[in-house]
Amino acid sequence: MSEKKIKKIAVLTSGGDAPGMNAAIRAVVRTCAYHNVAVLGVYRGYQGMIEEDFIELNARSVRDTINKGGTFLKSARSKDFRTKEGRQKAYENLKKHNVDALVVIGGDGSFTGALLFNEEHNFPVMGIPGTIDNDIYGTSHTLGYDTALNTAVEAIDKIRDTASSHNRMFFIEVMGRDAGFIALNTGIGGGAERILIPEEDTPIEELLQDIEEGHAKGKTSNIIVVAEGDKTGKNIFELKEYVEKKHPEYDIRVAILGHMQRGGAPSCYDRVLASRMGVKAVETLLEGKSNYMVGINNDVIDLTPLEKAIKGGSKLDMELVRVAEIMSI
Amino acid sequence: MSEKKIKKIAVLTSGGDAPGMNAAIRAVVRTCAYHNVAVLGVYRGYQGMIEEDFIELNARSVRDTINKGGTFLKSARSKDFRTKEGRQKAYENLKKHNVDALVVIGGDGSFTGALLFNEEHNFPVMGIPGTIDNDIYGTSHTLGYDTALNTAVEAIDKIRDTASSHNRMFFIEVMGRDAGFIALNTGIGGGAERILIPEEDTPIEELLQDIEEGHAKGKTSNIIVVAEGDKTGKNIFELKEYVEKKHPEYDIRVAILGHMQRGGAPSCYDRVLASRMGVKAVETLLEGKSNYMVGINNDVIDLTPLEKAIKGGSKLDMELVRVAEIMSI
Amino acid sequence: MSEKKIKKIAVLTSGGDAPGMNAAIRAVVRTCAYHNVAVLGVYRGYQGMIEEDFIELNARSVRDTINKGGTFLKSARSKDFRTKEGRQKAYENLKKHNVDALVVIGGDGSFTGALLFNEEHNFPVMGIPGTIDNDIYGTSHTLGYDTALNTAVEAIDKIRDTASSHNRMFFIEVMGRDAGFIALNTGIGGGAERILIPEEDTPIEELLQDIEEGHAKGKTSNIIVVAEGDKTGKNIFELKEYVEKKHPEYDIRVAILGHMQRGGAPSCYDRVLASRMGVKAVETLLEGKSNYMVGINNDVIDLTPLEKAIKGGSKLDMELVRVAEIMSI
Amino acid sequence: MSEKKIKKIAVLTSGGDAPGMNAAIRAVVRTCAYHNVAVLGVYRGYQGMIEEDFIELNARSVRDTINKGGTFLKSARSKDFRTKEGRQKAYENLKKHNVDALVVIGGDGSFTGALLFNEEHNFPVMGIPGTIDNDIYGTSHTLGYDTALNTAVEAIDKIRDTASSHNRMFFIEVMGRDAGFIALNTGIGGGAERILIPEEDTPIEELLQDIEEGHAKGKTSNIIVVAEGDKTGKNIFELKEYVEKKHPEYDIRVAILGHMQRGGAPSCYDRVLASRMGVKAVETLLEGKSNYMVGINNDVIDLTPLEKAIKGGSKLDMELVRVAEIMSI
Repeated sequence: MSEKKIKKIAVLTSGGDAPGMNAAIRAVVRTCAYHNVAVLGVYRGYQGMIEEDFIELNARSVRDTINKGGTFLKSARSKDFRTKEGRQKAYENLKKHNVDALVVIGGDGSFTGALLFNEEHNFPVMGIPGTIDNDIYGTSHTLGYDTALNTAVEAIDKIRDTASSHNRMFFIEVMGRDAGFIALNTGIGGGAERILIPEEDTPIEELLQDIEEGHAKGKTSNIIVVAEGDKTGKNIFELKEYVEKKHPEYDIRVAILGHMQRGGAPSCYDRVLASRMGVKAVETLLEGKSNYMVGINNDVIDLTPLEKAIKGGSKLDMELVRVAEIMSI
Repeated sequence: MSEKKIKKIAVLTSGGDAPGMNAAIRAVVRTCAYHNVAVLGVYRGYQGMIEEDFIELNARSVRDTINKGGTFLKSARSKDFRTKEGRQKAYENLKKHNVDALVVIGGDGSFTGALLFNEEHNFPVMGIPGTIDNDIYGTSHTLGYDTALNTAVEAIDKIRDTASSHNRMFFIEVMGRDAGFIALNTGIGGGAERILIPEEDTPIEELLQDIEEGHAKGKTSNIIVVAEGDKTGKNIFELKEYVEKKHPEYDIRVAILGHMQRGGAPSCYDRVLASRMGVKAVETLLEGKSNYMVGINNDVIDLTPLEKAIKGGSKLDMELVRVAEIMSI
Repeated sequence: MSEKKIKKIAVLTSGGDAPGMNAAIRAVVRTCAYHNVAVLGVYRGYQGMIEEDFIELNARSVRDTINKGGTFLKSARSKDFRTKEGRQKAYENLKKHNVDALVVIGGDGSFTGALLFNEEHNFPVMGIPGTIDNDIYGTSHTLGYDTALNTAVEAIDKIRDTASSHNRMFFIEVMGRDAGFIALNTGIGGGAERILIPEEDTPIEELLQDIEEGHAKGKTSNIIVVAEGDKTGKNIFELKEYVEKKHPEYDIRVAILGHMQRGGAPSCYDRVLASRMGVKAVETLLEGKSNYMVGINNDVIDLTPLEKAIKGGSKLDMELVRVAEIMSI
Repeated sequence: MSEKKIKKIAVLTSGGDAPGMNAAIRAVVRTCAYHNVAVLGVYRGYQGMIEEDFIELNARSVRDTINKGGTFLKSARSKDFRTKEGRQKAYENLKKHNVDALVVIGGDGSFTGALLFNEEHNFPVMGIPGTIDNDIYGTSHTLGYDTALNTAVEAIDKIRDTASSHNRMFFIEVMGRDAGFIALNTGIGGGAERILIPEEDTPIEELLQDIEEGHAKGKTSNIIVVAEGDKTGKNIFELKEYVEKKHPEYDIRVAILGHMQRGGAPSCYDRVLASRMGVKAVETLLEGKSNYMVGINNDVIDLTPLEKAIKGGSKLDMELVRVAEIMSI
């Protein structure tokens, strides 16, 4: 951990983009301005650090960014940063620009890189969890997650209009390769009949039985929300075909919400969270501490050692699974 | 055409649902109430007519419907109505309930059924064009089209956030099997680099060249909007693979907007249009005329004989194709 | 507390309406259905209880309500329920319909009524906190609060477009007579220069100085978010006039967001929260417990005695006040 | 009219801002790029022309602007431009930068200035109608009008949620000092009971009678949409008081939608319209013609002499007034 006074901080966004990343960059920049610390923006994540793709930022340069989706610093995945040489080059570039510490906004892959960088160069780093998937240990919410839930639920509402009008069944795929947060919450919020998540085994016969029972109860339309990483062993089109084969009388469609879930103006929650996290990340560095991820728990901003954040496991609340089941009675 | 005074009108929605259908039903019901004419709602389109699936409607029963997507009378495609027996049964049901005329909200398939019904039973019918595809002759706008454009453009905006953040290319499929209205307008509105529509042959080499030129000009992200019925001879995944094979350095993704384009609260335009069309449909019947489709042209509500509406061809404005080309410079 | 088995539960909404109330009614109804308990819906809050304005509800009758703003059971303030006679009449009506317990969705005024009703008639009650103001002790979030934040921030974003285009200053009033939750969060989320809340004294000279400093720093447009119950001692129009008198060169406008903050489709968060709270309210009653408010704390659903919920004080997090100050540098 | 070849065009936005102005600037810039013509952006309307507040624009500098509300060139009202000296200075600045023609995006006040500038300096000008009020002769739609309708209707929908929940009456003020377009269309779209517009005298007793009749028919909630420039002779708060005095039993609230109607991402319609108008404005100049306003009529882009556009009167379609009346039965 560095003892010297921090006079300049670099900030970058890395990995999949998420709504609220701009708000977090803005918060880092303005907190630095508040404390008379200079800020260097790094374009395209770690790759820009290696390629010296930098921009000086001040309080005014982040004007009108809090409500914008995406990240104006751009994001990228960097192969070069996985090499020792790449990280060395990145370090030299930061030193050349007199940068004393680094704030990384991204997911656990990005944090792994940050930690390695810290270990090799004794360079203070801080992480801000930015990913719509909410699959990071040490924080109840990641940046972009709340926005993604609203985006997905609004799309499901629209699909429900047409499902109800035609007495149709829809299989709707939402993001989530490894975690069911989005599926579970948007499934409940979207009034889904059934929700398939990576954390739960779902024998396909059980799914079929559920659908049949719903039909018997007089449900004329149905929404099944499916996480990308569900455990049926079938992709969403195969699921549809399987059910159709058993019940040719059902009128079934597939919808894949896809990348629109990553974009859009952040929700108020994500903007405030980003602002709070940005303040904490910078002020933690100014207190001489580093190598933490900023998180929110019980509505209070706190810190988790980066190492722990990376290794921590899933935290899906199984109470929600039960709520979903009851709601679909 | 019937000479007798009209005392009761039936209304139904048929074919693919579209935002504004509820507003049109409401307008039919309230215009009838205004003129002291009774209204019978028919569930599930022509099929409900055959199955006597009816509901009496009055001015209060359509309260709080103008802003709802879908159709509360439900829609369906009816095989039975394609038979003489089916239409006979439907006719008997309408007579049994003392219905004097029928208003059909739907697309040209629905109008074809209406006209046949009229011819066989000398029963007055009126059509209101309700479909997001805007592919009906005799009206500059169909109900739901304006809403679908906004829904698609908002989704493209969200995708653009993530496309820009990652310097990615996106192929985005929008609805339109036979007509390029949605693709052309959302392509311009979404700032697309290229738009593929059914009305235009697009040699795939030309598309590739366009993309390469854009790349050379320094465009770092790209949106290509593709109508379902485009003329490349490849589906959207094959398009992606074709371009990727030539340019493995491009980072390309596919998004299919799908059925969400059919739902959602109607735009102000669609609500007003629906209200105006409903008034005109009912008042035309009350004037003793029938067998017309209500349309809007030059912002004025007018009538087109149903026969002509069915047979009329496409009306895509090729000026827009040129605007799209200039905008993507 | 009742020992007998609960076979029928009544549910009502009371006080100011909030997005998510329909979702909470739905959750109460479906959880009852899940446990084979009957449900009686009470229209217009306590007034409907007195006037026997009831409707039997089942799992299907709450279909397509989760995404609707307002409350389909309607809400009202009841003078009659403040009298012993009124509450007696209400009790008799519930008994007449064999109701064993009551779930009240509303704010602390509604809970006070519920508790009094319980005390006089030994009738089991449960509270679900539904109000956009978030000013209830015992829960980090009330139903509708998250939605109201998004509604207000989206409106502020739109106003910012025109503020930026004209280099104007806007005073924007948001809801909150006694609590600054909405102002503080939408102020941060909306990128406000200054936020005025009921919890903090704001000498008007200090506000003026802030504005002047911002001007000197080159801020060309400004958003000042003001809670209804701010402590400047001036209403929003007087504030505007005060600043204008000192600085006739500023171009200042006022916007009052008003009742639109109460409506709209609930956010995903509010839908899920409503679902979880509804389950907990019913299952708590079925466990033989009552007189609690369901709350959420640290993302876990828990219970607070109604009496405590009513008497508890404010819980505004002053860390946020500091974040707001830093962000407006 | 200028005979010489046009090599550089200036573009500015003037008067009240409107959604779609950025899309129009973008279209002007890209059409120029398409034809190898240079573009000078003028900040803050005519005032920026006088103060030489310019920026060179090219095809890439308008990237990611089509979906943004407001105007990135800013807008302002200029007193100096009303003087001969101001216009002379502006002319000299344009000549200094080798500008050959000017495109003005704004309302009729802005067009009056443009025409005067043309007359004094024989400088080619073109107008693009940008105002949410739709009160310009020679075009069925002005830029921003369609977006403002959607913004207002969405706000009315939210207010309706709370109005319905409480059986309340709302007086809602929308923009429109001289024209009732917004009030009439959002009134129909928002399902208003009554709509007060500048084009129609509304004796206040008639309004009261309408409200009483609605009450008698069992309407439990009511929305009255009022244009700023309505002809009751009372402001919206006085209207409320007048009705309350006669009927203390009604629960009446006021909502003023205000400046949020000017902002927000433009609708697809406004983006496409802006793109088409920008192309036409530039290409008209390149054909050697000038002093026209670009308009849309019958969905076709055409030209109206600026002089005529300024002097033309209102064009509100009184059919809509009748539709509104029927819908509120």
